[in-house]
Amino acid sequence: MAVVLPFESAPEASIESLVRLVQPDMERVNATILSRTGSDVTKIPEVANHLISSGGKRLRPMLVLATAQMCGYQGDAQTKIAAAVEFLHTATLLHDDVVDESELRRGKATARMLWGNEMSVLVGDFLLGQSMRMMVEVGSLRCMEILSTAAAVIAEGEVMQLAAAKNTETTEDAYLAVIRSKTAELFAAAAEFGPVLAGRPKAEEAACRSYGTNLGIAFQLVDDALDYGGRAAELGKNVGDDFREGKITLPVVLAFRRGNDAERAFWRKALEQGEADDAALETAVGLMHKHRAIEDTCERAKHYGAIATDALGLFPASPVKRALADAVAFAISRAH
Amino acid sequence: MAVVLPFESAPEASIESLVRLVQPDMERVNATILSRTGSDVTKIPEVANHLISSGGKRLRPMLVLATAQMCGYQGDAQTKIAAAVEFLHTATLLHDDVVDESELRRGKATARMLWGNEMSVLVGDFLLGQSMRMMVEVGSLRCMEILSTAAAVIAEGEVMQLAAAKNTETTEDAYLAVIRSKTAELFAAAAEFGPVLAGRPKAEEAACRSYGTNLGIAFQLVDDALDYGGRAAELGKNVGDDFREGKITLPVVLAFRRGNDAERAFWRKALEQGEADDAALETAVGLMHKHRAIEDTCERAKHYGAIATDALGLFPASPVKRALADAVAFAISRAH
Repeated sequence: MAVVLPFESAPEASIESLVRLVQPDMERVNATILSRTGSDVTKIPEVANHLISSGGKRLRPMLVLATAQMCGYQGDAQTKIAAAVEFLHTATLLHDDVVDESELRRGKATARMLWGNEMSVLVGDFLLGQSMRMMVEVGSLRCMEILSTAAAVIAEGEVMQLAAAKNTETTEDAYLAVIRSKTAELFAAAAEFGPVLAGRPKAEEAACRSYGTNLGIAFQLVDDALDYGGRAAELGKNVGDDFREGKITLPVVLAFRRGNDAERAFWRKALEQGEADDAALETAVGLMHKHRAIEDTCERAKHYGAIATDALGLFPASPVKRALADAVAFAISRAH
Repeated sequence: MAVVLPFESAPEASIESLVRLVQPDMERVNATILSRTGSDVTKIPEVANHLISSGGKRLRPMLVLATAQMCGYQGDAQTKIAAAVEFLHTATLLHDDVVDESELRRGKATARMLWGNEMSVLVGDFLLGQSMRMMVEVGSLRCMEILSTAAAVIAEGEVMQLAAAKNTETTEDAYLAVIRSKTAELFAAAAEFGPVLAGRPKAEEAACRSYGTNLGIAFQLVDDALDYGGRAAELGKNVGDDFREGKITLPVVLAFRRGNDAERAFWRKALEQGEADDAALETAVGLMHKHRAIEDTCERAKHYGAIATDALGLFPASPVKRALADAVAFAISRAH
């Protein structure tokens, strides 16, 4: 006998239903974000909102709202927590752009290009402080622990990345350790707040954290692949930015390991000695295709995506559960 | 009839008794600091400890320990709180040095000169995260509120300072607003933890906060004066650094306002247009002496110092109360 399981059908590669399901909550989050970037100090609201209002997908706050829904949370703490997560994320982006000397972010000039590195560092610090204050208002020690741990772990990940920068011999494991910290940790934290707020059992907390971690890894890997094959419009930055900055990402790790001596000499010259002009970028992309480095990066992303989807297994079918699975498919599909 | 009040005699300009009274607690703070700069990520402990172990006076953690003692606190949360305060302070120094492009701090090369701006930004972020984590472990929402508010307010103060930079028409009030946020707020927070931990009445919390605020202002004003008249050794930075960076501090505000048109043209050229070489510094110091700008900055510092000392009035006489008053006298005396 056929059983109809409308919400357990194959996921769609779209975040539309996720966006729709959290819409009412997200409006409150946006209002909170707007009010909490307020400061009597000139420039702070302007610099903060430049990035916050620049059309990011707000994936991280959405994870807070969605997992809270999925876990049946009935309170209203998710609004401040989601805003705090977005603030922490924005702070790290402001600081990243200074560290990476980036000129473009989400298709717009970075704050540091408009107001200088100084302002980017300090407004980032302000947002870090505000995110912690919002958590204090929520009043849950456990939630504060999750966010403050994420803040420290993200910074550790960035330092690891800095140390690995320009080192073409970085292993895939070392690279994964970097993105687990700098990207996946905040996805994990965001997804964990829902079950924590709802007072759900440890197993559900762990499941949501695993979902977030693996979605975050998949997301970052696809980003890394897109940097060698996407278009600036969907990337929000220039193709080849990672290459020009000497960043070691998984496509490079794979192409380097699979290459011959001459190719490795090329990678070293390009990434370690900075000979990374447009001609070199073309060569780099050619070598990646030769060794299927971009395709396999996307394959790896699928692997983590599958773990993320499976992590949701112990939750009963619901529209929001399905929307979370769709979000994984969406993250992966950006590669095509 | 004469009453002997051994602890209410005139304060000595020394922090020796303060250092001695908090010594056993401070050893635990130092051990905590050392263990919490630990990270598996190479470089983080090295960069963090470069500044933390560089012989700062640890005045802020001492305030936590001393006010806890003065208020009769019997627990042990002050250790982690004092360490968290020092971490927040260190994080802001790391970021400040990037913002100000400073080369020297406490007489040593700044972290940014040794490991680069990137590392300074990120290790600062790591320390901010760690300081919040330590507060979470303490588990007092009120204490977390104090620290996270301080973090946001300090960043606001730095942004205000950035906006005021190179603006010779900054008023004394505007300048005071800057140092209230960027310097005095953390002194205030540090001093407030004691009565909060001890569960003392609001009036004592307010008294300690007032002590900290005004000590912090006095401290900063004397620092500002020393920049135009101290020696590199006691300053831990080069004489004239503020001048060369175009920083508007109280000595400049006073000399500018008291000067004639030709002098104001000089100040504008030096600080707004960056013509701040050694000859200009000599002229600047000359104008300051002419207008008693340095002396009056120290007079202002005395005013705030007096408020700080008076704020302690409602506490009964005790060795630690006296040591806190001595610390104010010490802060002021550095100017001579």
